[in-house]
Amino acid sequence: MAGSTHPANTGRSVETARRKLTLPPGISLHQFERAMDDLRSFMGTEHIEINDGPLNDGDYYHTALSHDSYSVMERDYFIASAVVSPGSTADVQAIVRWANKWKIPLWPVSIGRNLGYGGAAPRVPGSVVMNMGLRMNQILNVDEHTATCVLQPGVTYVGLYEHLKKIGLGDKLLIDVPDLGGGSVMGNALDRGVGYTPMGDHWGNHCGMEVVLPNGEVVRTGMDALPGSNCGQSYQHNFGPSVDGIFSQASNGIVTRMGFWLMPNPGGMLPFMITFKHRDDLIDAVDTLRPMMLSRLLGNIPSLRLGMWDAATYGSKSDYWPEHGGRPVPEDIEDRILEQEDLGAWVFYGALYGPDSITAPTWEVVKSKFAHIKDVRFQLREDVPERSYLHDRAAVFAGVPTWRELDWHRWVPNAGELFFAPISPVSGVDAKKQVGMCKARCIEYGFDYLGTFYIAAREMHHIVTILFDRAKPEERRRAEKLLRVLIDDAAKLGYGEYRTHIALGDQVAGTYNWNNNALMRLNETIKDALDPNGIMQPGRSGVWPKSYRGQGWEL
Amino acid sequence: MAGSTHPANTGRSVETARRKLTLPPGISLHQFERAMDDLRSFMGTEHIEINDGPLNDGDYYHTALSHDSYSVMERDYFIASAVVSPGSTADVQAIVRWANKWKIPLWPVSIGRNLGYGGAAPRVPGSVVMNMGLRMNQILNVDEHTATCVLQPGVTYVGLYEHLKKIGLGDKLLIDVPDLGGGSVMGNALDRGVGYTPMGDHWGNHCGMEVVLPNGEVVRTGMDALPGSNCGQSYQHNFGPSVDGIFSQASNGIVTRMGFWLMPNPGGMLPFMITFKHRDDLIDAVDTLRPMMLSRLLGNIPSLRLGMWDAATYGSKSDYWPEHGGRPVPEDIEDRILEQEDLGAWVFYGALYGPDSITAPTWEVVKSKFAHIKDVRFQLREDVPERSYLHDRAAVFAGVPTWRELDWHRWVPNAGELFFAPISPVSGVDAKKQVGMCKARCIEYGFDYLGTFYIAAREMHHIVTILFDRAKPEERRRAEKLLRVLIDDAAKLGYGEYRTHIALGDQVAGTYNWNNNALMRLNETIKDALDPNGIMQPGRSGVWPKSYRGQGWEL
Ligand SMILES: Cc1cc2nc3c(=O)[nH]c(=O)nc-3n(C[C@H](O)[C@H](O)[C@H](O)COP(=O)(O)OP(=O)(O)OC[C@H]3O[C@@H](n4cnc5c(N)ncnc54)[C@H](O)[C@@H]3O)c2cc1C
Ligand SMILES: Cc1cc2nc3c(=O)[nH]c(=O)nc-3n(C[C@H](O)[C@H](O)[C@H](O)COP(=O)(O)OP(=O)(O)OC[C@H]3O[C@@H](n4cnc5c(N)ncnc54)[C@H](O)[C@@H]3O)c2cc1C
Repeated sequence: MAGSTHPANTGRSVETARRKLTLPPGISLHQFERAMDDLRSFMGTEHIEINDGPLNDGDYYHTALSHDSYSVMERDYFIASAVVSPGSTADVQAIVRWANKWKIPLWPVSIGRNLGYGGAAPRVPGSVVMNMGLRMNQILNVDEHTATCVLQPGVTYVGLYEHLKKIGLGDKLLIDVPDLGGGSVMGNALDRGVGYTPMGDHWGNHCGMEVVLPNGEVVRTGMDALPGSNCGQSYQHNFGPSVDGIFSQASNGIVTRMGFWLMPNPGGMLPFMITFKHRDDLIDAVDTLRPMMLSRLLGNIPSLRLGMWDAATYGSKSDYWPEHGGRPVPEDIEDRILEQEDLGAWVFYGALYGPDSITAPTWEVVKSKFAHIKDVRFQLREDVPERSYLHDRAAVFAGVPTWRELDWHRWVPNAGELFFAPISPVSGVDAKKQVGMCKARCIEYGFDYLGTFYIAAREMHHIVTILFDRAKPEERRRAEKLLRVLIDDAAKLGYGEYRTHIALGDQVAGTYNWNNNALMRLNETIKDALDPNGIMQPGRSGVWPKSYRGQGWEL
Repeated sequence: MAGSTHPANTGRSVETARRKLTLPPGISLHQFERAMDDLRSFMGTEHIEINDGPLNDGDYYHTALSHDSYSVMERDYFIASAVVSPGSTADVQAIVRWANKWKIPLWPVSIGRNLGYGGAAPRVPGSVVMNMGLRMNQILNVDEHTATCVLQPGVTYVGLYEHLKKIGLGDKLLIDVPDLGGGSVMGNALDRGVGYTPMGDHWGNHCGMEVVLPNGEVVRTGMDALPGSNCGQSYQHNFGPSVDGIFSQASNGIVTRMGFWLMPNPGGMLPFMITFKHRDDLIDAVDTLRPMMLSRLLGNIPSLRLGMWDAATYGSKSDYWPEHGGRPVPEDIEDRILEQEDLGAWVFYGALYGPDSITAPTWEVVKSKFAHIKDVRFQLREDVPERSYLHDRAAVFAGVPTWRELDWHRWVPNAGELFFAPISPVSGVDAKKQVGMCKARCIEYGFDYLGTFYIAAREMHHIVTILFDRAKPEERRRAEKLLRVLIDDAAKLGYGEYRTHIALGDQVAGTYNWNNNALMRLNETIKDALDPNGIMQPGRSGVWPKSYRGQGWEL
């Protein structure tokens, strides 16, 4: 499934003075060098890096743009031939026209911290990665009156957060952050990522885009399509078709600016933690939550988290169970660890928004709804020790970027991770079915099941993280195989993933195959119309342009 | 601008035994008859009606499908050659394939009550109107647990409302209705229509579509693209690009089923009315509302309505001012009427949702925020007479379909209407600017300015209704001219329309022309890829397929 099994497809690898260089498909070294000279002629040398140095995985703070630092296949399969950093929309247009001329595939990233889903790596080996965020990193506008902002690709959550503080709006406008604050607001939204305040649906809370199309044209959507509009940040549509969606999880264009809605300060927030002792409490907990979510008694995106995932935040597997020998933790050891950490099988992290006068009585209502569950425990910040993960969740619920989630990377040595992310109805039976399926397969493949449900009003994102030792190629490949089995298992039960690693896009897309893959054929028709040369992110989300389709590129 | 000025474009008109028949463009009577025979061969005769009888405008309850009953141009310009009523998705596919074979344009409507925007009439004269709702009118599913439903095209608001009552969920699940309950849930959402509960963004609250594409293929979007999925009603996306938007205000497919989110009963509702006496209170009222909308103190889509529009609900122009002689009502007469009806220059209709224990104190907060405005008055249902429009709004805020809005059609005799619908920021200055511009132009063209602002969190839909006497062709044409001036005036100030009458789609689309019409060119590229024969709603929202483009079809 990796490069070696697709020799015809991968770009040819050539030795350079420094290291191997993976060329774009169908491009000779000579052509590549000419193409790069051409690129330098309008971009200058300083904004282009040829990827023939040693592959350095870096870490969260120093993200690799050359390849997937959590690679699940051969480390040098999902790899760039070069990285180029445009400084303006005009640069982006010029690069796209260049790519069309040379038929070289492009792979834009805003920050490239798409860890667990492929990082900054391109789907097609030898693509040119566009580091959109390096130089295009401005906050173009913040409007206090409408609680909105307009961003360039490189604005991170932490950058936006600090900016609001700096301009004196930190108390007035809250942002929504995912578990980690180092990603880009734009890249996360384009991948339809999730946060945890009432504005946690990042894609749903964007407003207006500027996109460079695969032919190099630049288009604005929403009200900013009307020159001089003063509603571009306020209303999500233009007159006529709404095209924004075809640029999410898609390969139809490069986004150069995007508007986002912020949250006005709700006047207070009460974060809390509810611990469910027994594994089977999952069913009752979810069924109790459903009406509370639907009625908006809980108005944000709270999480119901496996207790063991919390434990992984506090210590490594070897700390807890030195004799694990690489095996998944069995339930009796789990019980011991949960006891030791004062955790339950499941832990619910929620928050109530508004002034104390409202959240205090509401908290009483919340407690009363769960009171019937045996051994349930309710805790606020003052009830838990300083190291408690509740303090981190409290920050995230308040839109404050944190880094705590990196802690569970210590669970195994050299941790890489891979997310399995099926959608589940907000139903105890479904939750149990998904956990049962995932846990059994994880154990079968020698991994720990670590899962969380992120709960929106009508559905849950069930996020399962597979942590593997990057230094062990066999373990990486085993993780990938596990994912492939889970995707098929889930589809058989009627569950599909909301997002996936670039290695798995073809398979996941293949499960959305109603009526002989009608949706994929529609996506392909649009793709071919917009990108006849197939230069824009070929293969992203399993959508291949005509020139690649049926040539064995699918994994 | 009407048929007569585009003789080359309109279908040829031929006399039949009954009346004139307008043929599809480029189709002879002989071809048309053969095409109809072909259509009958698989649809049967009973589901096809040739439109050669007298043109009957009908009324709201008996909607004309043959033409625009509120026509602003020649009555027989926007006119069907025939109306066909499919009974299944397979029928729809067969009709679409038939249309491709004969190159006859189709115009699907769900109910066809798109009054003020063109009714059921097709943009291209001689198109075949598809009456989607007549036979495809089933409620396919209602799910109490997720508060969702799945509908066929013909389900009206009142139909859905009655159904929920019938199955015993009337108290548990609330629907959201627009001002009138006779439209289809689907058609309204596809045109991105508006209602007034917290679920008032009809398009935003849809979930999953089944669409027959212009090539006759049928596709499902969202989670139902995964066969056997149980999340189709709960999660709005599938894996990969989100395509739904290209089927809203668009001509890229015919929707055969669509999921919608409903509102769980919030446990109570307090509707209220705030009267602002002076015309200039508009500024202060809007600026006071903005933070309340943003913070979700007001969580639905309330309206700030011109007092004179309310007056129009209570009586006709001739009742109030017998000597009007067709002139717009001057301000001194307005003042007298407002006084007489105990109204103010502006009236705000809002609602608070939740149990009394929450809405009662919140109402006090709301009042305190407006208290500084001179002569402001606060009223609840018990404070107003039985005929008060507040009772109607209270029903609408509770998701109960009503017909009261039809009352203001008595304002002028034989009332037809045309909506002007620009988006405005939630800002007093903008509101005043828009009202000033609209009122001045209305008076200049001899019409009354009747406007309402429907307020979402970050923007307002400013809906201006132009009421004209349908029996007077000159008045119809004057109304159209007024709209054309307003569209240009608005664009110069940076305002654009969210929706418009079919006669005005080209002009409105033309205002969204950033970067040399980049958005339109993108829409055209998608259109041509999906509909190479140009048979699907050519010209809807100003998007013309290749075969029509630049041929003088634009109005
Ligand atoms: C410990 C941990 C916790 C995490 N928690 C969360 C979480 O809570 N929620 C969540 O959503 N994710 C989470 N992630 C996943 C991921 O780290 C984040 O989603 C992150 O924000 C994505 O990286 P980025 O913003 O740098 O996006 P990028 O990598 O820059 O982009 C993401 C995708 O969008 C495309 N893209 C980016 N910019 C553009 C552009 N300008 N034009 C066109 N396409 C573009 C890229 O090609 C890529 O496919 C987590 C990951 C880890 C390791
Ligand atoms: C007094 C009055 C008050 C009104 N108040 C409101 C209001 O509060 N809010 C509001 O939004 N509107 C309002 N309207 C406008 C209009 O009446 C409603 O929007 C109505 O719901 C639309 O008619 P319909 O549902 O029958 O849609 P249709 O006429 O059936 O369809 C509307 C549009 O969608 C397209 N369409 C319909 N079905 C399909 C399909 N299956 N596949 C593809 N395309 C399709 C049609 O071609 C048409 O362009 C009002 C009108 C009047 C006269």
